[in-house]
Amino acid sequence: MVFDDPATLDKAELEQGETFAPRFDDKGLILAVTTEAGSGDVLMVAYMNAEALTRTLETGDVHYFSRSRNSLWRKGESSGEVQRLVEMRTDCDQDALLLRVEQTGRGAACHTGRKSCFYRRVKQTGGAIALVQDSGEPLFDPSDVYTRD
Amino acid sequence: MVFDDPATLDKAELEQGETFAPRFDDKGLILAVTTEAGSGDVLMVAYMNAEALTRTLETGDVHYFSRSRNSLWRKGESSGEVQRLVEMRTDCDQDALLLRVEQTGRGAACHTGRKSCFYRRVKQTGGAIALVQDSGEPLFDPSDVYTRD
Repeated sequence: MVFDDPATLDKAELEQGETFAPRFDDKGLILAVTTEAGSGDVLMVAYMNAEALTRTLETGDVHYFSRSRNSLWRKGESSGEVQRLVEMRTDCDQDALLLRVEQTGRGAACHTGRKSCFYRRVKQTGGAIALVQDSGEPLFDPSDVYTRD
Repeated sequence: MVFDDPATLDKAELEQGETFAPRFDDKGLILAVTTEAGSGDVLMVAYMNAEALTRTLETGDVHYFSRSRNSLWRKGESSGEVQRLVEMRTDCDQDALLLRVEQTGRGAACHTGRKSCFYRRVKQTGGAIALVQDSGEPLFDPSDVYTRD
């Protein structure tokens, strides 16, 4: 799948138009914010390259690009926690994507076994700052699920 | 405000612990996904540097770092669309923040005058792909609000 080049669009076309021209960064990546289709809860953030975006659109299974492994990553390929794409949106300047997905498997988008990666709240108490886990226990034990690091 | 250095934490401490150690990237920035506190709707994505994060936590008014202007940016300073921080969360590896905010002003987080920056859906029809605006009209006219580009 070949995407339109955002450099060929003026600001009005980029922001108001009907042309999908994802603005990949200098590493060839675009940010994806992934939410649960039913609740709207933010599950995770990750990046896609053009191939991951193409495979996501073509197959309906969400693919990302793993920056740590430097490779294409079909979400759930190790864990079974496949994400089915329900809707994709883009933002005003087309440098970010918003995915609404059906989170299959045990319903855990996070590699720690939790539904969402955002399971900790930043708590300020006077001058001190700490994280508090307030969103439930893991739905699986990562050591049972991932055989590689 | 001085934040803990994530390099001093092992993986378990970073992911499971109570130490807030935001992982700023090689440009000194961390991603922020901003949602409306009531609805959970994703309003926008932007970046913070340490100063923006500090001012956000200290004042309760959300500050970002504008990559295009290369400067600290108090959200709403031009438009009046100030964001009041209700809650801040971080993700498993602490390289992203999730903000729940009260969007003041006209309720438009996007510089185009819309509530959310994600006002366009990616629509596939056969082999063709296009954007469709499906989330309502702008709440203000940007040309009335911004006197600078």
